[in-house]
Order: sequence, then C-alpha cells, then structure tokens
Amino acid sequence: MTTLEQTHDPVELLARAKKVIPNGVYGHQNVTMMQPGTPQFMQKADGCRVWDVTGKEYIEYLCGYGTNVLGYNNKVVEEAVNRQREICDTTTGVHPGMVELAELLVDTVTHADWAFFCKNGTDATTICCTTARAATKRKKILAAKVAYHGADPWCTPIPNGVTPEDKAHMIYYKYNDIASFDKAVEQAGDDLAGVLVSAFKHDVFMDQELPTKEFAQHVRKVCDEKGAALILDEVRAGFRLTLDVSWAHFTGVQPDMSAWCKAIANGHALGYVLGSEKFKVAASQIYSTGSYWFSAAPIAAGLATLKEIIRINLPEQLERVGNILRQGLDELAGKYGYKLRQTGPVAIPQILFEKDPTRKKGNFFCAELLKQGVYMHPWHNMFLCAEHKETDIALTLEAADKAFAALKEAGL
Amino acid sequence: MTTLEQTHDPVELLARAKKVIPNGVYGHQNVTMMQPGTPQFMQKADGCRVWDVTGKEYIEYLCGYGTNVLGYNNKVVEEAVNRQREICDTTTGVHPGMVELAELLVDTVTHADWAFFCKNGTDATTICCTTARAATKRKKILAAKVAYHGADPWCTPIPNGVTPEDKAHMIYYKYNDIASFDKAVEQAGDDLAGVLVSAFKHDVFMDQELPTKEFAQHVRKVCDEKGAALILDEVRAGFRLTLDVSWAHFTGVQPDMSAWCKAIANGHALGYVLGSEKFKVAASQIYSTGSYWFSAAPIAAGLATLKEIIRINLPEQLERVGNILRQGLDELAGKYGYKLRQTGPVAIPQILFEKDPTRKKGNFFCAELLKQGVYMHPWHNMFLCAEHKETDIALTLEAADKAFAALKEAGL
Repeated sequence: MTTLEQTHDPVELLARAKKVIPNGVYGHQNVTMMQPGTPQFMQKADGCRVWDVTGKEYIEYLCGYGTNVLGYNNKVVEEAVNRQREICDTTTGVHPGMVELAELLVDTVTHADWAFFCKNGTDATTICCTTARAATKRKKILAAKVAYHGADPWCTPIPNGVTPEDKAHMIYYKYNDIASFDKAVEQAGDDLAGVLVSAFKHDVFMDQELPTKEFAQHVRKVCDEKGAALILDEVRAGFRLTLDVSWAHFTGVQPDMSAWCKAIANGHALGYVLGSEKFKVAASQIYSTGSYWFSAAPIAAGLATLKEIIRINLPEQLERVGNILRQGLDELAGKYGYKLRQTGPVAIPQILFEKDPTRKKGNFFCAELLKQGVYMHPWHNMFLCAEHKETDIALTLEAADKAFAALKEAGL
Repeated sequence: MTTLEQTHDPVELLARAKKVIPNGVYGHQNVTMMQPGTPQFMQKADGCRVWDVTGKEYIEYLCGYGTNVLGYNNKVVEEAVNRQREICDTTTGVHPGMVELAELLVDTVTHADWAFFCKNGTDATTICCTTARAATKRKKILAAKVAYHGADPWCTPIPNGVTPEDKAHMIYYKYNDIASFDKAVEQAGDDLAGVLVSAFKHDVFMDQELPTKEFAQHVRKVCDEKGAALILDEVRAGFRLTLDVSWAHFTGVQPDMSAWCKAIANGHALGYVLGSEKFKVAASQIYSTGSYWFSAAPIAAGLATLKEIIRINLPEQLERVGNILRQGLDELAGKYGYKLRQTGPVAIPQILFEKDPTRKKGNFFCAELLKQGVYMHPWHNMFLCAEHKETDIALTLEAADKAFAALKEAGL
C-alpha cells in the first residue's frame, strides 16, 4: 500500500485539463453525465479501492470499467509483468509468451482454435467483422440496436464525424427478439457476413437482459444455414461469468469468433479475438496490426491474469459475493419503502430504481453513496472484482443504509 | 542486463505458433517476406540490441518498428513507469499525469493546443479524420497513394474483408505532386473535410522522399481556402527528427492536427492526437475511447520519454550518428563496387541497392548482416534510437564490410 504523493484541488485540475484536452476528459471516463460529486481524477488504486486527488477513499464498483478483475495492483500479475519487462517488452519480433497465451486460450475456451492479439475492444470487434467479410466475401453485419461494440466510426454511438458509408453495411435487430432478427437477416439477403451479439444485453440507462436459449439457438442455426459468422462480443462480460464464453454458459451456444478485452490482463493494455478453425484462413488473410499488439509485458499480464482467474475460480467467487450485495441492497431498499431493479448477472450488476424515469432517485442515491465512500454508477453496468470481499460488501451495505435514509429524508 | 531464461528451437516455436495464431505471427511483425534467417521470436532486448530465442545477439535497426527510441529498457522511463504502477494505472478515473503530459505537449509542439490520448497509431489517424469531418460537416479525406496510415478498414493496405464503402470517401494524390493533389481536391469538390499527409514519403520497397516546401505550402494554402483540416501523420517520424512536427522542420508548414505513436513512450502502449484550437470543439464532439486510453503508466512513460528526448536533444544525436552510418555504408559499398540508395532522414534510414529490381542484392546483404549479428530490413524504413552509439555503428560497419564481401563473392 503506497501513500499519496500529492493532492490536488479537483476543480482546478479539471480547469487545467479543459485547457489542453477536449472536454478535459473524454469518452467513457468523462463523468459529466454522472451524479454530482463523482470524482474525475484518481491518485491511487488498491484492491477494490480508489483514492481521488483529494485523498478521499472509495470502495468502487466500476473497476476501471471492467479492466480491474483481480483487484488493483494484484501481486501475481504485477510480478509477472515485472519479470517480463526485465527481459523484453515491445521489440522487433515476438516473445514466446504470445504463443503460450494463445495455447492457454485455445485450451480454456471451447470454441477457440486460434487467438489474434490487439489493444482495444474496438480492435477486437473490428477484426471479427473484417474476418467474417473476408471469409464469406459478403458485407452485411447484424448487430443489436443501441448495443455498444466500440468507438470506431462503424460502431460509435455518437454520429458526429461519422459518414453514412461507415455504417452502410450494419443492420440492426432487437436483442432476444427472433422476429426482428429474422427481419434483419431477410434485409441482408444473400450478403450476410456475420452477426454480432453481446454476451448479454448490457445497454446504458436500462435493465440488463440475459440471452434466451431460443434466441441464441436460432441465431446459431441461421448463421450455420447462411454460412455467416456468429461473433460474440465478450468485451464486458468475458471471464467474469464463466471460464468459457458467456453464451456457452447461458445458452449452450458456441460462437465462431469472440472479441475480448477488459477482464483479460487486469488493467494492462490487451485485447484479443478467439476464433474457430473455420475462420482461421480468413483471419490469416486480413491485415490488421498495431505498434504495441505484440508487446510482451501486457501478454505476460494476460497469461498471469487468466491463470489466476482459473486458479481461484473467479466466476464462482463473484457469483457468491455478488449475490450478497444484491440481496443486501434489495433488503435495504425494502426497509425504506423503495424497490430496486437489479438486473443481469450479479457479477456485472446494473442497479436502477423503480419509478425513476428521470433517474433522480438513482443519482441522489449514488451521490449519497459517494459521500459515504462508495462509488457506484447510476446508469451504467458495474463490475465486481476478486478483491470485493464480504467485509467490503458489508461496508457498502452500511453506506447504502445511510444513502437510502437520506433519500427518504429528501422525500424522493 | 538480465540473462536469458530459456532458449527455444525457432522452427518448433513457429510450428506451435501456427497452430494457435493466424500465420503464426501476423501484421508488420510477420517476417515471411523478409530475408532468409530473419528471427521471428525474441527473448531479450537491451539498449539497441535484441536476442533471438536461440540466444543469438543482434545490433538492430528496426527498434520495435520505431517504438524503441531511447533504447530498450531505458532506466529513466522504466523507473517512471514503476513509480506510477505502484500508485495506480488503469482505474475508474484519470490520473493527473494525463493533464501534465497534455500540457508538456502543448508547450513543446508549436501547432498543439490540445492532446487526445489513445493506444494505436490507427486510433490517432482515425480520430483526426473523424474530427475533421465533425468540424467541416464534410466527408472527403485526401491521402497519398500507397501511404500507410494504419490498419483499420478505411486505411489497411490489404483489401481482404474490406468493403468499398470503407474507403468510399478516400481520394488519393501523389506525394509532393501538386498537379495530382489539385486533381484530388477538385474531385472532392465542396466535400473536402481533410488532407492526410505523411511526415515524409516512407513507403515500403521504394526510396524515401522529403516533402518539398512548395508542396507543403500549397497543401496548407488549399486547406485554408477550403476550410479543410491539414492532418500530419507523425506516427513513424515523430520526435526522431525535431522537437516539433516534422513538416515544421522540413518546410515551415504547420498542420491543424497531428497523429502520433511509436517514439512517444519508448515501447509502452500510447498514441495521441495533437490539434490546434480551431479543431478543439469538433474533437470534443466526437466519441472515441478505449478501455486503456486513460491508463496512467503508459502516460507516465510518455511524459518521461518526451522529457528525456528533450533533455538529450535526441534529434541532434540521431542526426550525428545516422550520418556516420550512412557515410560508412556508402564508402563500403563503393569499396566493393556497389552503389546504395540511402534515402530519407539519416535517423529513419531506408537502404536499397542500385540495380536491384528483385531485391536479390538487398536480401542477400541483410541475410549476411544477420549472420554477423546485425539486424537490418531490406525494404522497410528503419529507425535509430538513443542507444545506437558510435561503437555500435563501428561494429555495424565491420559486419557490413563482411556482408559486402560475401555479396561480391556470390557474384551478385
């Protein structure tokens, strides 16, 4: 545990940031749309805790938007990274660790016969689409409406700077809705290259939803009939719910390719695509690469992280702890006369309030939690990590008790 | 200096790799098209040297395709990274170091009023194009024929898996050719969003070419008249030639945005876009982000790397050492009756043989150099780093002497 080197006035720091960075902070890390008091700048992280630049400590449930899976500063991962960095990291050539990680992934994930390493989740979903098109010589990709698959022009949720052609071959269906899926397939005609599916429905602002078996089996059947690629976006869910792909866990259905990021290297920059033999030739025909895609240290982090996830059976641990959190929050809500909508897997919770169309209750509740030293998100799914222990959940529930009381007191 | 942990049979290792990774190794790190004997896997790196998996040592001139700028394992950078990692790296929030690096960049690079951090060079060029389109509400981007600006579908050099729409708004001109540029501008009509230019012409397989003043000034004038963005791709050249953008150095012309990667964090995963005030609002309106774009350790590496580059005046050092290498090779070539085409900046050399249309001489020469423990590329530009000292250049020239002798002996 290190001490803070220096504290900052967060208002001054944000003003400095806004001078030299668009919006001060951009993308998913910009807190403008979150509850009042949300800290923008962090000075320290350890286990399941972060410290903002004033030195205030939080138990937090965003986990670096999913990248923190074993706990910040996990000793096993950091030592593996240090050992690798002493030898080599980004060089002219590839370290054997890349082969070792690919082999472990092929051994671990049922559908995987090969691995393709990259940096961003967007890189991974893009590689899947390009490979699907190369394999099928077709163009259309289906994706669920408003599902997030990355931030390149073909998938970014904001239209500024995007041309119609960037999304010309995207067709949208409604998650878990077979009729709308069939309509999208019909629209693709004989040009269907692939179908993108999220591990489960985890869109912002709304309840999460697990894939139904009927939907998953239908998507698999149609992809097989059409020779299209079933592409599973595991970026948010991967290795938090199961030691295989999430659809295998929820529905028994295997994809042709899966896109991974976040939980795979405990915060070190790594993404990858896993694929079945059927798409290996196509994956070897596309050209996609990046300056740091072969860096050995993040790959060493990926190897150590996956071995640790397997060793401790992380999905089982997160399920257990996540259930305590969910039940505890439900009980507290009831005690104060509120009802929560806690949806999706307990390891990747989304917590909304019933009868809260403007999110006034949710924002107030999360703002109160922040005061109590607990950082939750009022409308984005959250993530548990291996360092969320029962004692942390107990502290969180104590804070939640006070936050519900304040909510009641405020007459919301 | 660490010792090798383990050696491998490179043939066996490549066979293992091919089982679980498309092509074994893909992208720019695949050595299939290079000279015989090129090592694919590396076990160690230090200074300007790499060791392959058999333990063989090389003085090398690819420098991780440019990412190694201060020398592998630079102590100042690695210590900065270690200090940062002890506190925090990828968290829920941004470390103040990001603001500090943005401020240093704005202070250092003349045209820069803001910085936008990312991971890949492709991210950086893509953000520039998206911002140009958001600012102008137009679609067309001009780029030089065969210039490499990344590996996303809109710019990847290989067509497999790419749809016509991915490149629908790209129009190509010939580098340094005002007439062809004007033709491309005419083709864009009133829909010109931006013009992508490389720092200099550094295409594979051919001579490099610096930008002419007339060309650069003309491009600047047209962009100003049309209200289009002049986007400089500094990914390969940045901070190796000057402490400002390369076009300012070569031509006195400033861009509106510049895309950076490679030399900016000494091998730690970092890319950034720098931009002028004029495009700041547009940059704040686009949505582009990634799981690791705010990671504090690579940003600490970026800060330490830039400070070191400035402290030692790296461009001046590379120019001095690069001239010794270039002159020495020219003299040796002459001694054996050969003539080299050494083009572009001495810090980013491209070395081809005269009268070598099938690259037989170049391949043979580089294969001989490998035997002598020197790793050069027969058709891709190379990179010098701060740890290429005069003693390393002397050893390289000794090896080159033997390689030229072998070339002569072979009757090539």
